[in-house]
Amino acid sequence: MNQLSATELIGLIEKEIPRKRILESLSERYSYSYDASFGEYLPDLVVQTTTKEEVSFIIKLANEHRFPVYPRGTATSLSGGSLAVNGGVMLDMSQFEKKLVIDQENLLAIVSPSVITSEIHEAAESVGLFYPPDPSSSHVSTIGGNISENSSGPKGLKYGTTKEYVIGLEVVTPTGEIIRTGGKTVKNVTGYDLTRLIVGSEGTLGVVTEAIIRLIPKPEDRKTLLASFDSLINSGKAITSILASGILPSAMELMDNACIVAVENYIPSGLPTEAEAIIIIEVDGHSSAIQKEINKCAEVCKQFNAINVKVAQNEIEREQIWKSRRMVSPAITQLGPTKISEDATVPRSKIPEMMEKLNEIRDKYKLNLVVFGHAGDGNLHPNILTDKRNIEEMKRVEDAVSEIFEAAIELGGTLSGEHGIGLLKAPYMASELGEDGLMMMRKIKEAWDPNNILNPGKIFPQEGQTKVVLI
Amino acid sequence: MNQLSATELIGLIEKEIPRKRILESLSERYSYSYDASFGEYLPDLVVQTTTKEEVSFIIKLANEHRFPVYPRGTATSLSGGSLAVNGGVMLDMSQFEKKLVIDQENLLAIVSPSVITSEIHEAAESVGLFYPPDPSSSHVSTIGGNISENSSGPKGLKYGTTKEYVIGLEVVTPTGEIIRTGGKTVKNVTGYDLTRLIVGSEGTLGVVTEAIIRLIPKPEDRKTLLASFDSLINSGKAITSILASGILPSAMELMDNACIVAVENYIPSGLPTEAEAIIIIEVDGHSSAIQKEINKCAEVCKQFNAINVKVAQNEIEREQIWKSRRMVSPAITQLGPTKISEDATVPRSKIPEMMEKLNEIRDKYKLNLVVFGHAGDGNLHPNILTDKRNIEEMKRVEDAVSEIFEAAIELGGTLSGEHGIGLLKAPYMASELGEDGLMMMRKIKEAWDPNNILNPGKIFPQEGQTKVVLI
Repeated sequence: MNQLSATELIGLIEKEIPRKRILESLSERYSYSYDASFGEYLPDLVVQTTTKEEVSFIIKLANEHRFPVYPRGTATSLSGGSLAVNGGVMLDMSQFEKKLVIDQENLLAIVSPSVITSEIHEAAESVGLFYPPDPSSSHVSTIGGNISENSSGPKGLKYGTTKEYVIGLEVVTPTGEIIRTGGKTVKNVTGYDLTRLIVGSEGTLGVVTEAIIRLIPKPEDRKTLLASFDSLINSGKAITSILASGILPSAMELMDNACIVAVENYIPSGLPTEAEAIIIIEVDGHSSAIQKEINKCAEVCKQFNAINVKVAQNEIEREQIWKSRRMVSPAITQLGPTKISEDATVPRSKIPEMMEKLNEIRDKYKLNLVVFGHAGDGNLHPNILTDKRNIEEMKRVEDAVSEIFEAAIELGGTLSGEHGIGLLKAPYMASELGEDGLMMMRKIKEAWDPNNILNPGKIFPQEGQTKVVLI
Repeated sequence: MNQLSATELIGLIEKEIPRKRILESLSERYSYSYDASFGEYLPDLVVQTTTKEEVSFIIKLANEHRFPVYPRGTATSLSGGSLAVNGGVMLDMSQFEKKLVIDQENLLAIVSPSVITSEIHEAAESVGLFYPPDPSSSHVSTIGGNISENSSGPKGLKYGTTKEYVIGLEVVTPTGEIIRTGGKTVKNVTGYDLTRLIVGSEGTLGVVTEAIIRLIPKPEDRKTLLASFDSLINSGKAITSILASGILPSAMELMDNACIVAVENYIPSGLPTEAEAIIIIEVDGHSSAIQKEINKCAEVCKQFNAINVKVAQNEIEREQIWKSRRMVSPAITQLGPTKISEDATVPRSKIPEMMEKLNEIRDKYKLNLVVFGHAGDGNLHPNILTDKRNIEEMKRVEDAVSEIFEAAIELGGTLSGEHGIGLLKAPYMASELGEDGLMMMRKIKEAWDPNNILNPGKIFPQEGQTKVVLI
């Protein structure tokens, strides 16, 4: 904080916000110093805001006294999105007044940022509707955080990402104005699409205080299969061939051999540890249609020499299949205390090439690198398991991560499919976007946030920052 | 043009662009002075650019010598989007080098801006794929224009708008830099979503020189019905009830009585001229599923007292149903030489209220007002048929249009669902967005286009402009 001491700042804030929602002790601040990445930065102060007026008040104060503000939901970010890298005020949005209204007639949900994403799933499904985005953390992450990061999960292929569902926002701007963007209609071309500009802007362009979310009718039924392959190339061919046959699965998940072995070591369930790849395919829709579709998917897998194809015959068998996928995260954390979770994304047809490249990187740097991800939309999650106290190994991790990014960009892909740039990928922005592309983004940030108040140090590389900042 | 004479400017331009693609005669310029709205503004010069380098050259020259540049496809805009309101250079993009590549493996199309939208439909369908956006003008409009306006047509309800399909762009910025946004992956959160910012920005933030478009598998089959109602309220209830039953039709079109009468007078085909409303519903997907769905739709219509429900039994009957919808535009132009086509959009549940309001406006101002539109997504097209030489009537039209906008906003809707703001709706922007919301848009425009080169006079209201500028 540049101009004020913490005590002076508390004096100003408590004029509008009850003292009990201003946290200043070291232990309180410490619990706000990390997220689901491995970074740690202590904020000077934490303020729990519950209304848009309070958010606006804090941001106006920040502009007046030039301190940074970091909006934060439940801090499940994997890219350091909410870390207080320059000190200042952590804006805890998880205590915001809860609002979750389902508008059945218009197929909409109106939600406040503090609502947990899975609560939206449940509310929608209770009236026969469906909110497809489903990040792995959806049982703990807030919708405000999902919107800020555009995190989406396995259903992007068929249903699109969070961005495709958010059609209106109430936002506090970086200078403290409260504005509304978009609205309750899917079609809206009244001026620039500020809604989609703010979704995925990682809290650097505004703090979301309400969102209007589009829902769709809940699919009648679903069918699931698991297929194992002794060749990654063949599993990739099966995936593109299924899509070319006119089937659009609701999920197409891929696990590599390292991932299969880790899961099987963690909880033995008969996974084929000799397989080079497993794919899980789920189709949803009308019962009559999806039976045909899942049979076709099984047929295509066999055509590409799948070792084994198992179609779930009931909900219990379906659950078993998905359990192996859900066990990936707990299983791999057994391999090392620090988990570096990336989400380099490539055009779908390049998945086999990317997987080979990842194998090379694993061998070259001798790291615990496991790969799984949403193969249908090219969104891979290479995870490196390491120990951040091991400086020598972390150096190798840093180099490996650089090579992963380079490979993704070379194959026509992107640095990040859904985790965000945050702190960790900022140095690589220009390699994907070019200096001119990055400059157009900077111009927006500077025009909207002239004092660089909102979530500074994220997305844009800092002077002299050329590598992953690991520690 | 502020600094140069047309002759001086031609001298500069022909250094890089062949003289035959620089048009200066009055007759040539006149043919570029209008679009599908009723405005007319003569550009000082027309330049037909065929490469991104030529576009960049013109825009850099424009920044140096401060003349406006108006990008233009085939000028089917209904909101005056491409009109040269401040003189300057009309940038004809319709002659741009054609590129239309279908990438079957990745379900993508790579297109240049000069490709006609229906050519994309045909190319995709020839390999079993599908590009859903389908504005009425898709047989003549360019994809560059569709992207700039985010014009979408009847399938927005089920399939989303143009914006949901454009995932990457090559763009020349307002200062002449050539940048790439997004890419070939559906998931991409590398920095701000410039792709979606540029889609629908009406040529004010950049000139699109290439687009990457997502395709989906072509639905196996479709079923269509036409239902007539003697109560608008009931037709609206049928629409929301069908959606609540879990069916997501690919189209739900509405025609009011004035529209039905106009079509039946134009080409008699047995439409019920006494009906207050007709709705056309189409479902698509797997054959087995959609037969059930269309039966359910018919049942719901009957439940809400439809006078008549006809399900097409074959392609000929389907064609007959859609013909009545397609005849709307030619039929209503018989009612007056000037057609003012609006696209006020309201939340779906507000359609009956909006239709009543439109009836009141028709009676109050004694105008030929017919209403049709995409009822499923609330996107109505009130059309006023008049004669722009009749000053007295045009005054009433102006007042009526103002009231239509007010009604839409009051019902939680928007000024424009897909025609764009252009010239004609700019004065109403603040009434929907508020001054602060409009200011955030202006900040982007000013940061990106400091000399106000690209398509000036559009989207943002001009000083003192408080009403529709009709003549």
